[in-house]
Amino acid sequence: MAKSPMDSQITMTELVLPNDTNVFGNLMGGRLMYWMDIAAAICATKHCNAQVVTASVDNISFESAIELGNVVHIEAKLSRAFSTSMEVHLKVWGESFKNQERYKSNEAYYTFVALDANRKPTRVPELVPGTDEEKRLFEGALRRRQLRLILGGKMRPEDADELKALFIQVRPGL
Amino acid sequence: MAKSPMDSQITMTELVLPNDTNVFGNLMGGRLMYWMDIAAAICATKHCNAQVVTASVDNISFESAIELGNVVHIEAKLSRAFSTSMEVHLKVWGESFKNQERYKSNEAYYTFVALDANRKPTRVPELVPGTDEEKRLFEGALRRRQLRLILGGKMRPEDADELKALFIQVRPGL
Amino acid sequence: MAKSPMDSQITMTELVLPNDTNVFGNLMGGRLMYWMDIAAAICATKHCNAQVVTASVDNISFESAIELGNVVHIEAKLSRAFSTSMEVHLKVWGESFKNQERYKSNEAYYTFVALDANRKPTRVPELVPGTDEEKRLFEGALRRRQLRLILGGKMRPEDADELKALFIQVRPGL
Amino acid sequence: MAKSPMDSQITMTELVLPNDTNVFGNLMGGRLMYWMDIAAAICATKHCNAQVVTASVDNISFESAIELGNVVHIEAKLSRAFSTSMEVHLKVWGESFKNQERYKSNEAYYTFVALDANRKPTRVPELVPGTDEEKRLFEGALRRRQLRLILGGKMRPEDADELKALFIQVRPGL
Amino acid sequence: MAKSPMDSQITMTELVLPNDTNVFGNLMGGRLMYWMDIAAAICATKHCNAQVVTASVDNISFESAIELGNVVHIEAKLSRAFSTSMEVHLKVWGESFKNQERYKSNEAYYTFVALDANRKPTRVPELVPGTDEEKRLFEGALRRRQLRLILGGKMRPEDADELKALFIQVRPGL
Amino acid sequence: MAKSPMDSQITMTELVLPNDTNVFGNLMGGRLMYWMDIAAAICATKHCNAQVVTASVDNISFESAIELGNVVHIEAKLSRAFSTSMEVHLKVWGESFKNQERYKSNEAYYTFVALDANRKPTRVPELVPGTDEEKRLFEGALRRRQLRLILGGKMRPEDADELKALFIQVRPGL
Repeated sequence: MAKSPMDSQITMTELVLPNDTNVFGNLMGGRLMYWMDIAAAICATKHCNAQVVTASVDNISFESAIELGNVVHIEAKLSRAFSTSMEVHLKVWGESFKNQERYKSNEAYYTFVALDANRKPTRVPELVPGTDEEKRLFEGALRRRQLRLILGGKMRPEDADELKALFIQVRPGL
Repeated sequence: MAKSPMDSQITMTELVLPNDTNVFGNLMGGRLMYWMDIAAAICATKHCNAQVVTASVDNISFESAIELGNVVHIEAKLSRAFSTSMEVHLKVWGESFKNQERYKSNEAYYTFVALDANRKPTRVPELVPGTDEEKRLFEGALRRRQLRLILGGKMRPEDADELKALFIQVRPGL
Repeated sequence: MAKSPMDSQITMTELVLPNDTNVFGNLMGGRLMYWMDIAAAICATKHCNAQVVTASVDNISFESAIELGNVVHIEAKLSRAFSTSMEVHLKVWGESFKNQERYKSNEAYYTFVALDANRKPTRVPELVPGTDEEKRLFEGALRRRQLRLILGGKMRPEDADELKALFIQVRPGL
Repeated sequence: MAKSPMDSQITMTELVLPNDTNVFGNLMGGRLMYWMDIAAAICATKHCNAQVVTASVDNISFESAIELGNVVHIEAKLSRAFSTSMEVHLKVWGESFKNQERYKSNEAYYTFVALDANRKPTRVPELVPGTDEEKRLFEGALRRRQLRLILGGKMRPEDADELKALFIQVRPGL
Repeated sequence: MAKSPMDSQITMTELVLPNDTNVFGNLMGGRLMYWMDIAAAICATKHCNAQVVTASVDNISFESAIELGNVVHIEAKLSRAFSTSMEVHLKVWGESFKNQERYKSNEAYYTFVALDANRKPTRVPELVPGTDEEKRLFEGALRRRQLRLILGGKMRPEDADELKALFIQVRPGL
Repeated sequence: MAKSPMDSQITMTELVLPNDTNVFGNLMGGRLMYWMDIAAAICATKHCNAQVVTASVDNISFESAIELGNVVHIEAKLSRAFSTSMEVHLKVWGESFKNQERYKSNEAYYTFVALDANRKPTRVPELVPGTDEEKRLFEGALRRRQLRLILGGKMRPEDADELKALFIQVRPGL
């Protein structure tokens, strides 16, 4: 049974409390990755109705610091389902009430594997993207997967056709 | 003043307690990334004697689950210093006392920016690699940096000379 | 400047982890009230763009237990703004992936006071309800406020006109 | 076997640490409700020698802010036992050592249901109030219970005889 | 101004939750020492009306394991005040509701130093013991202090008259 | 099978975060004892390959305050193995990056008992000290054990031969 990204999309909202901050009074990167992991796991679990474990996390860049007392919004949405794994796309914003502004903090991809009761990988439903952005994320997932396989030493760079093309002809970003 | 990777290397040891685990009784990926962030930040801070903030995290793959009651060993070592940023290489093992074995969990690169008292990026000491492994990590850092710049949309793939070579001629891994 | 309840509505999603549970392996009532307080505070802060403190919490009934590994959804929406205080309406659901069901856990009203930089109560924007449900919550807020004033010993029962009517003629609930 | 309120009365003392505070450096309402829930649950468990779950919480008003570094005293005492549920009365004080003063923070009623090994409600011992204050709390418990039933939609206001009287003739408080 | 041990005595009650336990499901020794430190610090602060820091902790023996879901009672009472430091005596019990029993867990002495606003040691009020047990604890404090000074390398064993006597003539315990 | 202290030695590194601090912004004594307990338990578990529980903790003196943002290094090394128990020697340093200094915080001995699957004490491997410092710690362990037995009321002072000698002839410390 195929599902849409909307079926499992979730929003998580957290308040930056003293213990979440570093010596500058800003949200620690590690705490944010922890929240992102929980948000992404909930999203993946909703898609497959099975328990999931984190398999990998893509490159994360932290663009803006989020201050103590600000709010963190994490949006998690499935970008592609493979046979037993799922890639989740995360967008993170900070929100300051003093300045009445919402600013982008970072974006990332987390990949999860679905496990059955014996802790063995189990098949997950197909994902059918609907909107243009969902289709763009769905297509990019193949390139990101090849990159993960190369980085994990499970694919040779010269076999990564999708990725290779990137370095030979100009494309508008990964 | 140049420094060696040994000058800032640190080891962190944590015990997996109930609140660190998922529904399978294994260490949550998000909790591990949180500990890795702290270990890497301590290592970067030791190198530059300044406060640091997490700038980016490279692809992380989780190879083996670490069970409740097992011990987590995190080794953090500087792989390269750029002008105001530092790349830290992390190795993570789990250790089970019941089975008397130590098994690899994952490996990752975290990048930090050094900040001065006004929260502006500040120069960090040069890093001079000593051992063969340190030299290999030092050289790979350029390729990983180009990859981060491309993924962050700050460099065009066709300008990433170091990385491009990977996809044209065969090399033994990133 | 008047605002709509939609302007400050937020959704919070949490995963029930081991340390959130009681000896039955279910979410503790106290932990849920803690999360509801944060969700409601974020909502009130968004409405008034000022810092807020919890002033009171209405009667909360816990209908269904939420198990370890289930997800908690908390929806917070402003029901009425008074001169310097705001009443937030909270709805809480649990979600079980094993049974693929979403079940109501409880509902509550939290009241916050907006404070200025000197920690003195400060005026908040007016709230204009739009939908029928928003209007129903807006009207009920007066009765709930009289009840809070009586319970706090700040109003005599015989002066609570809105509430008194409830006990003399039949109405469809508070 | 009947028991006295003294048999299960407990006192809980907590120190307000950084992670318990809001942006004003005061104890968060949600954290206090969490502590009150634990204190009240311990008290109810002592009375019935069975595991208990939180069933409902009455209106709570927060009177005074409790600062970082101050101490919180929570006194929990059973006010009435019904067939399978118990109402616990809580009094909360803050204590500042700098000013050498102890100030009232708030007061509340938490209700718990006793569960047997199959998680079914089970009978609890009778409570026999001794002092005048214990008798006053015992009698008020009926009115508070009617109010909870009305607020929960399980009783019609016109059937709440104890409560109704309040709004027709003047009484000295709920 | 002299004070009695009763003036600063406090009782702390905690519930053993999942994250407080070791792999056997019992309260971790380290968590209990953390709670004892907070209880003792509150007691010392009440005596001197100043901020305090932990200076030393005496030998602690853990007699009985406290299980998940049991309650911990910590009683903290000043045993002696020196010029700028105070020794606090702690008694810890576990309580099981299933077995309706209260069992002793351990006993310890924590010593605190009072600090003024410049973080310099400051004088504390005298302590005048009342009951026989208070007098016994007060007298033993001198011997324990000599032992601490010897263990800390700040006193030679042969100068510890109070303690020395113990090893030459038989006495009924330290 | 005899083992060396090096076989089970571990190093733990922690960052002092806001929730670990007291009102002075320094690491709380109780939090440090909690970390020391975990570090020592990991060390003891490595030596005996069995689960362990904290049996006792020797006198701990806190020499220097460790500030927020500083790093804590805990080194745990077995000092002696008895039939079913092990004494672990802990050394703690703080490290400040601003001042580029590493300062001693404290030193302590924690004793653990090894338990089998039925939670009964079980035999542990012998420990053979190698270096001069390891031999010194190994020998001192007997005196510390006599002191623990006396303090716990399980040995009469006049029977503690090792300890008694200390008070009669001058020795260079315990």
